[in-house]
Amino acid sequence: MTASTEASEKIIIDQKEKERFMREAIRQARKAEALDEVPIGCVIVCDGKIIARGYNRRNTDKNTLSHAELNAIRKAAKKLGDWRLEGCTMYVTLEPCQMCAGALVQSRIDEVVIGCMNPKAGCAGSIINLLQMAAFNHQVKITEGILHDECSSMLTEFFRRLRRSQKHTADPGQTSVPEQADARNQSPAQDQSPAQDQSGAPLS
Amino acid sequence: MTASTEASEKIIIDQKEKERFMREAIRQARKAEALDEVPIGCVIVCDGKIIARGYNRRNTDKNTLSHAELNAIRKAAKKLGDWRLEGCTMYVTLEPCQMCAGALVQSRIDEVVIGCMNPKAGCAGSIINLLQMAAFNHQVKITEGILHDECSSMLTEFFRRLRRSQKHTADPGQTSVPEQADARNQSPAQDQSPAQDQSGAPLS
Repeated sequence: MTASTEASEKIIIDQKEKERFMREAIRQARKAEALDEVPIGCVIVCDGKIIARGYNRRNTDKNTLSHAELNAIRKAAKKLGDWRLEGCTMYVTLEPCQMCAGALVQSRIDEVVIGCMNPKAGCAGSIINLLQMAAFNHQVKITEGILHDECSSMLTEFFRRLRRSQKHTADPGQTSVPEQADARNQSPAQDQSPAQDQSGAPLS
Repeated sequence: MTASTEASEKIIIDQKEKERFMREAIRQARKAEALDEVPIGCVIVCDGKIIARGYNRRNTDKNTLSHAELNAIRKAAKKLGDWRLEGCTMYVTLEPCQMCAGALVQSRIDEVVIGCMNPKAGCAGSIINLLQMAAFNHQVKITEGILHDECSSMLTEFFRRLRRSQKHTADPGQTSVPEQADARNQSPAQDQSPAQDQSGAPLS
């Protein structure tokens, strides 16, 4: 086997492993969906094993902090007995918001693998890249686009269903879910803030 | 009473109220200090009343998320039964980090009143101003410098004591706490990351 074949095989194995973990993050997102929450999920991996899972439960828990990423970070820290998640990687279906990106820097996590980007509110490169600011004392490696289509369509379909159900129940003239809802504002049915009405594709 | 006298009296009353709430935030910070945590505390006020309190417990809880601000946001959301903290104001002894500033935007809180700034890691204007980015769907009003000297000296003294105690116990040559520790890296005794060794005043 040549060196270049070996290198290619390593890339393929690495890609397959990333997809395996992202698939579990999608399974977590489906749990959010089952609660009528915007489907966002993640897992945290350490030494090749999943040590924590999380999904969006913001409306269910009535808790600002109950994003998928923060739920997983809390569990991972508990599992490791340390607030530092050095040596860990997070797999998350959607680009993190400013709070979750901030928490990832604070956790000193090594890497974040992202399913799809969120051009309207993402803070791992879309609006700003909080994960790699030289001014902070930690930077996080970013890998994008793992199982992109599955992650993206899961959100698109969620918002399409939401709009449809609102259309059926709404009085004429009632504000409906915007065509391109901001996925990070995790309750677009209730949230009609100006930024959300500005449209612009929420998913890359 | 002239209109200008009335306006001046209103400013004085307003200032006194802000100081009253900041004093309670300092009391919270002292609880952190009692646990050998970096003294950072905060309260959240709604309709003129404190609805939640929080202090830094990151090392004690072994939890990345256990900053003063996040602890208070979680409690306030529970109290109000809503992840949205609209109509609320946070009083915090030190400028929030990237995670806490992000959480404040996510919470839709109205205002943040800050004791002293953190030029090395603060995200309400020092490194970046996450609270007032036009690209996000919410901006937070910022008031700075309420009980500045008390808030600032509380931290300076904490780090001075820490350095002194380390000097007494350390072997010659052991790494000591840097002269100007980064207050947001809430365990400088254990944390000797490069950013911390760069010095630069941590408090304004």
